[in-house]
Amino acid sequence: MNIAFDMMGGDFAPLEAVKGLQIYLSGTSRPATIFCIGDEAQLKPLFDEYKLSGNSNLRLIHAPEIIGYHEPPTRALKEKPNSSISVGFGLLSKGMVDAFISAGNTGAMLVATMYTIKTIDGVSRPTIPTIVPKLNGATGLLLDVGLNVDCKPEHLNHFAILGSQYAQHILNIENPRVGLLNVGEEEGKGNQLCKETYPLLKENTKINFAGNIEGRDVFQDKADVIVCDGFTGNVILKLAESVYDVALNRNVHDDEYFNRFHYEQYGGTPVLGVAKPVVIGHGISNDKAFMNMISTAEKMIETNLCANIQQSFSA
Amino acid sequence: MNIAFDMMGGDFAPLEAVKGLQIYLSGTSRPATIFCIGDEAQLKPLFDEYKLSGNSNLRLIHAPEIIGYHEPPTRALKEKPNSSISVGFGLLSKGMVDAFISAGNTGAMLVATMYTIKTIDGVSRPTIPTIVPKLNGATGLLLDVGLNVDCKPEHLNHFAILGSQYAQHILNIENPRVGLLNVGEEEGKGNQLCKETYPLLKENTKINFAGNIEGRDVFQDKADVIVCDGFTGNVILKLAESVYDVALNRNVHDDEYFNRFHYEQYGGTPVLGVAKPVVIGHGISNDKAFMNMISTAEKMIETNLCANIQQSFSA
Repeated sequence: MNIAFDMMGGDFAPLEAVKGLQIYLSGTSRPATIFCIGDEAQLKPLFDEYKLSGNSNLRLIHAPEIIGYHEPPTRALKEKPNSSISVGFGLLSKGMVDAFISAGNTGAMLVATMYTIKTIDGVSRPTIPTIVPKLNGATGLLLDVGLNVDCKPEHLNHFAILGSQYAQHILNIENPRVGLLNVGEEEGKGNQLCKETYPLLKENTKINFAGNIEGRDVFQDKADVIVCDGFTGNVILKLAESVYDVALNRNVHDDEYFNRFHYEQYGGTPVLGVAKPVVIGHGISNDKAFMNMISTAEKMIETNLCANIQQSFSA
Repeated sequence: MNIAFDMMGGDFAPLEAVKGLQIYLSGTSRPATIFCIGDEAQLKPLFDEYKLSGNSNLRLIHAPEIIGYHEPPTRALKEKPNSSISVGFGLLSKGMVDAFISAGNTGAMLVATMYTIKTIDGVSRPTIPTIVPKLNGATGLLLDVGLNVDCKPEHLNHFAILGSQYAQHILNIENPRVGLLNVGEEEGKGNQLCKETYPLLKENTKINFAGNIEGRDVFQDKADVIVCDGFTGNVILKLAESVYDVALNRNVHDDEYFNRFHYEQYGGTPVLGVAKPVVIGHGISNDKAFMNMISTAEKMIETNLCANIQQSFSA
């Protein structure tokens, strides 16, 4: 198993990326082979310092350019073919690695995914989900959280399948319940999008539809997979992330539940609906976040997630 | 000043309504005259018990019918002309009272408001806001939270004016900053609705536009008034309400901030954009919530909110 890892992406890269790599390697007996992409001059001394030099599971791939956070994605990708993101997608599209992970420029990651990795046949729109910590200890999924800010009913119907596959294979939830985020519980409630989406979900035999889910139920365990348009999902994602900060601000420290809202637990966000595993990390990723990103990619490869998704859309 | 008060609306009515009335009266030296609408047979003994009988500021108005929570609003209003909600709107539309408050069937309250109280000239859509507690102690407003689940840019532009007027006159915020809820900070970000709304807000000389606001900023003090479509707003409202329950669940008790998420602090939700003050309470309103609803109505009357709104739309 080969994973390409952008060592230069993120506010605290490459140091935290190197530390994350070390944590990953020390925690597994059969590690994947990691293609570490980045500036050799910066990486070599860090690999020495963290005793990673000479590790047979690592390949250092030199990429002298970096796409900054505020660069316009499409132009940056064009002008910087030797950036860590461009090189990573090159390796992935050529089949030299099985997955690519990066905490770099999110827009560039998404644009490159769309341009270089094929959308799975039948999927109307790839999507990005987020993990939702439930009060009872369970873990749910919410999607889309920003890739598709204007959605049609068919898109939400596809998010339901994509989310169910991820919940089943990666979160190990059997027959995951799908909820439609809405303003009321009864069928017929909602905006135009929800009213038209509800019957599609109800008739979709590839999912286990559990009906409408209201805002108050997001942290309750009424559904494993909650689907919504990417505008609403993005607002909720960022609001939920801020709950962790609110808790800290109110001196609620080391609370098992509130801690689960912390980004580092997520292990990045997979892009679902494309033919190969791509995981995008948070810009402020620390070592633990990077380690979790590698683990997420590893699990996506191991479980053949993309092939399973492909099958569920072709059946 | 005359306020009509539906004593029968809410899960814990009429008892909590009577207790709320008592708290209100004991806390003010110059109370409004309250038209207490409800079933005399139930109200009289409670008025005796809570020493309200004979109080010159109270008028008991008999209304033998009640519209239940799950009744379809339009039909219920038609079939129950002697319900507390129907009687209340009768008093308000005839000018016998200056405001009407109820914690009864929300749908019936909204339908009756639309049918019996005139929308202010120039207002494209009346709206309902919610109070947002900010981490720094400030109080903000978010609207629409459910009256308009499908919105056009013009609607959000009007919500901005309506919210600004409420923030200025009722929350005493001078020159309130208006934020557009969005998925990014920069102009040009967002779904179609936001992209088209941004320039309208920017050019609107009746408001103090502060740009885009992301989900993570809702509890921060970046804007006093946050506008969004009623679908997104309703999801956030219910999610924010659940934060209080989450805090309780995590044994965070008596926290000054989290307590501000509790519905009883809100004093109900005003309907903004209609010619007379209408305040709708939460179905689970307790005495404190009812007391706050009366205070909100009182303040709306005192500050001539509806006339001020009328003026801001005619100028």
